[in-house]
Amino acid sequence: MVKKDEFTVTPWEVKGKVDYDKLIKKFGTSPLDEDLLKRLEGIAGSMHIFLRRGVFFSHRDLNLVLDDYENGRGFFLYTGRGPSGPMHIGHIIPFIMTRWFQEKFGVNAYIELTDDEKFLNDEKISLDYSRKWSYENALDIIALGFDPDRTFIFQDTEYIRNIYPMAIKVAKRVNFSTVRAVFGFRNETNIGMIFYPAIQIVPTFFEKKRCLIPAAIDQDPYWRIQRDIAEGFGYFKAAAIHNRFLPPLTGPEGKMSASIPETAIYLHDDEETVRKKIMKYAFSGGQATVELHRKLGGNPDVDVSFQWLWYFFEPDDNRLKSIEDDYRSGRMLTGELKEILIERINEFLEIHRAERENAKKKIKEFKESGRLAQEMNAKIIE
Amino acid sequence: MVKKDEFTVTPWEVKGKVDYDKLIKKFGTSPLDEDLLKRLEGIAGSMHIFLRRGVFFSHRDLNLVLDDYENGRGFFLYTGRGPSGPMHIGHIIPFIMTRWFQEKFGVNAYIELTDDEKFLNDEKISLDYSRKWSYENALDIIALGFDPDRTFIFQDTEYIRNIYPMAIKVAKRVNFSTVRAVFGFRNETNIGMIFYPAIQIVPTFFEKKRCLIPAAIDQDPYWRIQRDIAEGFGYFKAAAIHNRFLPPLTGPEGKMSASIPETAIYLHDDEETVRKKIMKYAFSGGQATVELHRKLGGNPDVDVSFQWLWYFFEPDDNRLKSIEDDYRSGRMLTGELKEILIERINEFLEIHRAERENAKKKIKEFKESGRLAQEMNAKIIE
Repeated sequence: MVKKDEFTVTPWEVKGKVDYDKLIKKFGTSPLDEDLLKRLEGIAGSMHIFLRRGVFFSHRDLNLVLDDYENGRGFFLYTGRGPSGPMHIGHIIPFIMTRWFQEKFGVNAYIELTDDEKFLNDEKISLDYSRKWSYENALDIIALGFDPDRTFIFQDTEYIRNIYPMAIKVAKRVNFSTVRAVFGFRNETNIGMIFYPAIQIVPTFFEKKRCLIPAAIDQDPYWRIQRDIAEGFGYFKAAAIHNRFLPPLTGPEGKMSASIPETAIYLHDDEETVRKKIMKYAFSGGQATVELHRKLGGNPDVDVSFQWLWYFFEPDDNRLKSIEDDYRSGRMLTGELKEILIERINEFLEIHRAERENAKKKIKEFKESGRLAQEMNAKIIE
Repeated sequence: MVKKDEFTVTPWEVKGKVDYDKLIKKFGTSPLDEDLLKRLEGIAGSMHIFLRRGVFFSHRDLNLVLDDYENGRGFFLYTGRGPSGPMHIGHIIPFIMTRWFQEKFGVNAYIELTDDEKFLNDEKISLDYSRKWSYENALDIIALGFDPDRTFIFQDTEYIRNIYPMAIKVAKRVNFSTVRAVFGFRNETNIGMIFYPAIQIVPTFFEKKRCLIPAAIDQDPYWRIQRDIAEGFGYFKAAAIHNRFLPPLTGPEGKMSASIPETAIYLHDDEETVRKKIMKYAFSGGQATVELHRKLGGNPDVDVSFQWLWYFFEPDDNRLKSIEDDYRSGRMLTGELKEILIERINEFLEIHRAERENAKKKIKEFKESGRLAQEMNAKIIE
């Protein structure tokens, strides 16, 4: 049983109400503070909503990444996706962030599809299944607008020939005690999972530059191991920026779960499904009756619809403020707040659906024929 | 300390005087008995010296392999080499046996070069080093006369793309407890070594037939795991025949060791080196002086030169019997016995050197362009 106020964050489990300040202390990362964000804004020329609103809240060595950029050494981006099923709104946060960095800094981005890991980690997932979802997920990722000549999308079981030599070099430096301590592996853990961290670490060595990894905070344990061994190989310690989990529709605890469809809005959800899910499941900060709501007002701090507008769907600060004021005062009812969110999500998904359809023609560029993909397919990493 | 009569046999260590009868009980294999050998001889039309003289002394399911051959289902051969340095006479025993089976039964043979394992297992071995020796060892193996259209030689780091999907399927069925119990892995074992058994098991699934593995008995732990999981994948339990370790020159304990060059005759040793090593190091069953030797006779049961003639270099039973009688009676001195061995080894190595030179032109066939190699390079195993 998880005790009140306790929470678990590992690459394979997020449980309880995550205390992000505690997580920063526990993981030994640094908060993304105002000074650093201002410096980033100064160089990038703008500030993405995910940074401004604190979706990304923690980092490792982002300051050094900016130093490297300014002194001309450069950096590269790396993130990934575990293809265990369809992607929801929460899954694309690191990709939107990665794409933004690529656009603002003109750097290469590497995107790993971990079909091996998802197969190894779940008795119910076949390798064919995780490969099928690798393809489907790649379309959703490409739809977000990556540069086909600066982005390489690779799937572990397909690209293994190129990364295995470096993976075993990493593996030789990591023992069972370490992965047991870092990931909670046990004697019953299968030997594929035990080896897998070596695979996920390799892309941080794709270039002899600093690697910036925009990813959810649950992936940080991999980078901790990477940072212990990277310099021994003559590479840089990986830098990272960590995002929070977008709260599940159903309430502020845990993260959206692929196995509980009502907690999430999927990229493939149609307009009617979005409406139904938000109306039915979105956890409300409103009062029990309209009368009470008008009198006491709603609580945007716990209202999931408001949270989603805050983190993702309402980039305009003034409009957000006026929604917040209206809701808190009781002038805006929960149903009205939900209507705003439904409209925004459906606008977003309509564009996404079109871009995803286009992605089917582009996927070959990202995996094989684009400039970076060609270069990477010709290269053995070691 | 190893107590008297105690011994250790694992894929990475052979220590003490090996009691092969005890090993059969400990590993749960079966002795290669007269009836089975006669049946094999009946089908093959002849009996190889290694079988007749007991170099191969133990097996798993060889009877079923012969059943499969007779009822037309067929079988295939698999063996391998850990490319940690130059090969000596002891290393080629499983390959000579494999080649004999290939010739007599007309079946495919798969030969794995485990450059990953040797790199992972030894702090002092770099990946470049184990790859260099993969090439050099392949030449020695090809020199033994394999059929280029029925033999596929593959090196793990090069062929990994084709075997990784099946390797992770195997890995998903094997946990840390199992490899700890079977191989003695510990918390300090690196995660590459922990995963490696999955790689070595995959080639037993290269065909949907029974796989016969001629290999030294120390490799048996891999096949034990394979036999636990094979039928769950719809494949056959691997069959195996196990060879003893040719005794080191220096005495009957342990096995020839690459790290102690005087214990072994290398395939690259020239005539003079062979002479010097045998004369200087070959453990003698003779008496302290010529006078005593003439009077008391020598002991062929502990004399390493005689053992080598027995196991490998004197296939003629009558000639061997007469050497044994002469030595045991004192008519033949240790020096004379050694001269016979030196001559035989040098005859063998002279032919080997020539064949090894030819192998440089053939290696591409075995890895890429031969019939079986082409087929295997076009195929993903899963």
